[in-house]
Amino acid sequence: MSFNSFGRVFRFTTWGESHGPALGAVVDGCPPGLTLSEGDIQPFLDRRRPGQSRFTTQRQEPDQVRILSGVFEGRTTGTPIALHIDNVDQRSKDYSDVAKAYRPSHADYAYDQKYGFRDYRGGGRSSARETAARVAAGAVARLVIPEVMITAWVEAIGGDAIDYAKFDAAEIGNNPFFCPDPDAAARWEALVDAARKDGSSLGAVVTCEATGVPAGWGAPLYAKLDSELAAACMSINAVKGFEIGDGFAAAALRGEENADAMRPGNDGGVAFLANHAGGIAGGIATGQPVRMRVAFKPTSSILIPVETITRDGEASEIRTKGRHDPCVGIRGVPVVEAMVALVLADQKLLHRAQIG
Amino acid sequence: MSFNSFGRVFRFTTWGESHGPALGAVVDGCPPGLTLSEGDIQPFLDRRRPGQSRFTTQRQEPDQVRILSGVFEGRTTGTPIALHIDNVDQRSKDYSDVAKAYRPSHADYAYDQKYGFRDYRGGGRSSARETAARVAAGAVARLVIPEVMITAWVEAIGGDAIDYAKFDAAEIGNNPFFCPDPDAAARWEALVDAARKDGSSLGAVVTCEATGVPAGWGAPLYAKLDSELAAACMSINAVKGFEIGDGFAAAALRGEENADAMRPGNDGGVAFLANHAGGIAGGIATGQPVRMRVAFKPTSSILIPVETITRDGEASEIRTKGRHDPCVGIRGVPVVEAMVALVLADQKLLHRAQIG
Amino acid sequence: MSFNSFGRVFRFTTWGESHGPALGAVVDGCPPGLTLSEGDIQPFLDRRRPGQSRFTTQRQEPDQVRILSGVFEGRTTGTPIALHIDNVDQRSKDYSDVAKAYRPSHADYAYDQKYGFRDYRGGGRSSARETAARVAAGAVARLVIPEVMITAWVEAIGGDAIDYAKFDAAEIGNNPFFCPDPDAAARWEALVDAARKDGSSLGAVVTCEATGVPAGWGAPLYAKLDSELAAACMSINAVKGFEIGDGFAAAALRGEENADAMRPGNDGGVAFLANHAGGIAGGIATGQPVRMRVAFKPTSSILIPVETITRDGEASEIRTKGRHDPCVGIRGVPVVEAMVALVLADQKLLHRAQIG
Amino acid sequence: MSFNSFGRVFRFTTWGESHGPALGAVVDGCPPGLTLSEGDIQPFLDRRRPGQSRFTTQRQEPDQVRILSGVFEGRTTGTPIALHIDNVDQRSKDYSDVAKAYRPSHADYAYDQKYGFRDYRGGGRSSARETAARVAAGAVARLVIPEVMITAWVEAIGGDAIDYAKFDAAEIGNNPFFCPDPDAAARWEALVDAARKDGSSLGAVVTCEATGVPAGWGAPLYAKLDSELAAACMSINAVKGFEIGDGFAAAALRGEENADAMRPGNDGGVAFLANHAGGIAGGIATGQPVRMRVAFKPTSSILIPVETITRDGEASEIRTKGRHDPCVGIRGVPVVEAMVALVLADQKLLHRAQIG
Repeated sequence: MSFNSFGRVFRFTTWGESHGPALGAVVDGCPPGLTLSEGDIQPFLDRRRPGQSRFTTQRQEPDQVRILSGVFEGRTTGTPIALHIDNVDQRSKDYSDVAKAYRPSHADYAYDQKYGFRDYRGGGRSSARETAARVAAGAVARLVIPEVMITAWVEAIGGDAIDYAKFDAAEIGNNPFFCPDPDAAARWEALVDAARKDGSSLGAVVTCEATGVPAGWGAPLYAKLDSELAAACMSINAVKGFEIGDGFAAAALRGEENADAMRPGNDGGVAFLANHAGGIAGGIATGQPVRMRVAFKPTSSILIPVETITRDGEASEIRTKGRHDPCVGIRGVPVVEAMVALVLADQKLLHRAQIG
Repeated sequence: MSFNSFGRVFRFTTWGESHGPALGAVVDGCPPGLTLSEGDIQPFLDRRRPGQSRFTTQRQEPDQVRILSGVFEGRTTGTPIALHIDNVDQRSKDYSDVAKAYRPSHADYAYDQKYGFRDYRGGGRSSARETAARVAAGAVARLVIPEVMITAWVEAIGGDAIDYAKFDAAEIGNNPFFCPDPDAAARWEALVDAARKDGSSLGAVVTCEATGVPAGWGAPLYAKLDSELAAACMSINAVKGFEIGDGFAAAALRGEENADAMRPGNDGGVAFLANHAGGIAGGIATGQPVRMRVAFKPTSSILIPVETITRDGEASEIRTKGRHDPCVGIRGVPVVEAMVALVLADQKLLHRAQIG
Repeated sequence: MSFNSFGRVFRFTTWGESHGPALGAVVDGCPPGLTLSEGDIQPFLDRRRPGQSRFTTQRQEPDQVRILSGVFEGRTTGTPIALHIDNVDQRSKDYSDVAKAYRPSHADYAYDQKYGFRDYRGGGRSSARETAARVAAGAVARLVIPEVMITAWVEAIGGDAIDYAKFDAAEIGNNPFFCPDPDAAARWEALVDAARKDGSSLGAVVTCEATGVPAGWGAPLYAKLDSELAAACMSINAVKGFEIGDGFAAAALRGEENADAMRPGNDGGVAFLANHAGGIAGGIATGQPVRMRVAFKPTSSILIPVETITRDGEASEIRTKGRHDPCVGIRGVPVVEAMVALVLADQKLLHRAQIG
Repeated sequence: MSFNSFGRVFRFTTWGESHGPALGAVVDGCPPGLTLSEGDIQPFLDRRRPGQSRFTTQRQEPDQVRILSGVFEGRTTGTPIALHIDNVDQRSKDYSDVAKAYRPSHADYAYDQKYGFRDYRGGGRSSARETAARVAAGAVARLVIPEVMITAWVEAIGGDAIDYAKFDAAEIGNNPFFCPDPDAAARWEALVDAARKDGSSLGAVVTCEATGVPAGWGAPLYAKLDSELAAACMSINAVKGFEIGDGFAAAALRGEENADAMRPGNDGGVAFLANHAGGIAGGIATGQPVRMRVAFKPTSSILIPVETITRDGEASEIRTKGRHDPCVGIRGVPVVEAMVALVLADQKLLHRAQIG
């Protein structure tokens, strides 16, 4: 029930602010006996790490994770796993403007309305820096679901989409955009550079696919697999939309067009002739790839001046200095993957609880 | 944590199958002292009730709700409110085909994979009939949030969208489609009739707006208001996508286009110049209208034959007899409204718990 | 998190008041495929049923349970199981005095302080009548843990304890006191009769033992098996104390006296030489019998006049008419058993979730 | 739902092992705007700290707490508060015997049965060292409930109880036993010394009283205030019994003896003539002092040899070297107080959620 925890049986809690001394996650309910060290987590943090190209924030954070509990002689013990990441490159003085006035479309105003005041340094708790803790927790989740392979990529930036005819999963790691289409990656370089130079920012769409999810995972009715995935992805900073399978496109189809027809498979199982559903029916996995799309809005912190008000209610204008991602959706890729892993690990254990 | 409950402090649990003797909801955590009788709930059930036009299933269910607990001398006591609705028009013999073979894109196959067998009569627990319990619970939730007005409508059927220039909220109740644009309603009559006659079905988009939500409601990070709304809506039968505010369209915008600029309001508060965010920033309400879109796929139960397999894995074909909605999204309108009310009631109480 | 639910994965919710039309429970998370009918539940309700001897309340309630969902063709489907029991022998006019003044040590005053008013008929939600719903849910829980045998009995009434040298489990069902010592049963007949005639009431101690609980069940640290059992038992009406194993007596022992020494067992496992711990160490079952004691206070509703105040704060005196148990601990036996079954079923599934 | 979290709205999660690098707690749901620094927490940790007299373990731990998040400019922000305590005096080599054989009545055997192996160094997660995290979290909880004063003391050690005629709350801090009766404190010095020299250990009873709890706090039926307190206290290491008010003694009373008669109070409220109930009726606070007793068994780690088995199932004998409390109940005093504070803070917020 707590606000900063997610999951039901495999559950994690995050803590930490953008400019505090550290941030972290506590992962609870992890099965015992899994091989786990910092080396299993660090590569995922490295993928998400800022400052690796000019297309992300220039804040330099090594994001070195330490495991402070729950592992003994290299194996998980079944007790809570505390993951700790120090913040090292805070520059809080950049934020004096933000202390006084609200960045439109950022969480500033809403936090003040809710809590009466806020830690304005780097956005405090509302900063995307918190997603480092998710990615660390997600790396643990992956160990719980070795049968599943999760891959996400950027499908579009600023409305410019990839061409799926050119989709090559091997390309995703070869460019700073997690882009599976080399031509699109080339275009995006110019696109993001232009936005960055303008002091603007761009939205993006991230697609994620999980293969190997066994038929049966999912917990209807109010912990449906797609409902949990939606909650998980919508909790990520800047996310404004979620689709499973064909999503909004399905709303324009007729029943026979949307039907994922079935025939006997070669292996004695079933062969699906389509996957409009995105691998989930009635909230339960069908065994097909689980596929979803996630919409990221453009970063709210921009250098272009926007009309706003001060904390005292005076008319003002704000240009957000500090270091920000010109397209926060790019670094959303490892975060979406982490959240999907966390949901699937939880659903695997829930399924095991009820079904055995 | 239970599978069939939703909410944190204001919480409801539903039970019941399509062809069982009854279905219902238990609402827990409702504040005491609210005036409540069946008369406060019945109108919402009547809006959702099947068999009211040729555009919904012809199953005749009066959906009479009874309050079995939690109310004394016309007021809520603070104890659980049990809501009970009898099923009266089950025709289980219609379902012998469904018992043997799987309806593609329906929950049949997934339920069998998960549970080993299923109550195939009318879809059992996976039937949209369960949403009657949600609507009943949602009517109680509305009493908890009298400051909020929730209105949903159908924005598109089968890809044919309304014209917002013709939007008239007063029209929503004047046609069988919950359509705010009379011209679109006229077109949809022909469209849905054609699909029905073809034995096909249509998808739809439902939009919902909640006005009067005070700035500050919402519980970051993992119970964000938009995250909860997404989970709530994605748990509804046939829903495949969710957007808050501009949703996927925001992913194509630049930061300055997406900014909801602010200036001092006449009342001493704030005046927003736009609402791309849909009334939520950082997971917290900003005080603007909370606006979301929900994608419903076309009904999976259609008369047009679709290739499938039997429970024994044999190749087969299925035409779904029985009584089904040609466009399940239409009756989704009161269900979306109910889920939004349930989330907002819960978030109001959560806010009160932490902030006072 | 809801107030009227208990359990984590195997979870139940109860609803209903003493003088409402009905009461019930929704059991969620039950594994599919278990054989279940009303006939599996009714015997447990019959054991708890009032009016069966002069030593319990004379209210005549058949307590016929109906299963309204979650079972198909005689087997659980994995979906919520709604259990419904009609109230038939309400006599609400008995309670006009209670409406006006508070019964000392009863929940009346506290409910008014919390909720502002209360359903005073028969104690409303605070009535022990609610425990019928627990017993029904507990009967379902027993099906989940066939490896476990749960037996409770009354160990003492009004301070008069059984002699464990005369303990005979077969006697428990042979007298109206769930008493395993026939001599004590004979004494209690006179004791309870006297209290009843005096218009007084008596406290009792109930002991419960669960054998067959596998080593390993339990979920440290905050869902420890003994912590969950304590919460479950303390939630029962009139319960004021809980002990696991030697309980308070252990506080007077030295370490070597309290040690449950171990030696190799004949079966290749372990043989314990004592069970001071009551079958739980570190919150986890050791495989020994899980044994606990539960203290019930005397019924607060008595005919002997007690000084009190009215709702308006005036000095008054109250004699509680209506029909009440002279010793509520007696009927606590099936309730304690039910709560123990519910905790163990939940812990079995939790263990399965984490450990596999 | 997670295993290592406690609370519903005001919720904390602990992590850490006895001989890991650190341990800590994350407190979630804390209201914003409370003044909080390490200085508010440290005094409570200092009371619990080991090595302060010869009557507790000689392990030297400074237990310096650091706040890593959730506080900005000296005030809580409403976001998670991470509390971090480094372990500095681990001597893991003391535990080679424990690695091989099970300490009877300790968690060793049960952990191995559950998880397949265990972190045997200092008891790992089952060590009472974890209670430092609870005490730190409890210090935060106290800030949420300034209206409440919580005081605990040791009532008996090894069966030797204080004389309540000599009770002096001011004495509690004047001796190493948290003993309010100076004569008993003098006797206990000899008693505990003798046990320590024998290589034995002693059980204890801790009593705790919370005054100022407003009538109305508590959340029936399954989050009753007494049920939550029982769960909280039973989750503490070595606790085997819990009583609210008269507890087991009430089971020997008649109804009129147990009645907490009421009369009009001088202040326009109510005056209770007794408090057998311990301040709770129907799971709700009555406004009287909330009083409970907690039974601690003697420490299981003793130098006196006890018959046991090895991990391989061989017969063996064990003497537990390492540093242990001769009477773990003594340091239980600040832990019980912390758990009571944590429950009351949670119930205050829950009450506020539902009642406003």
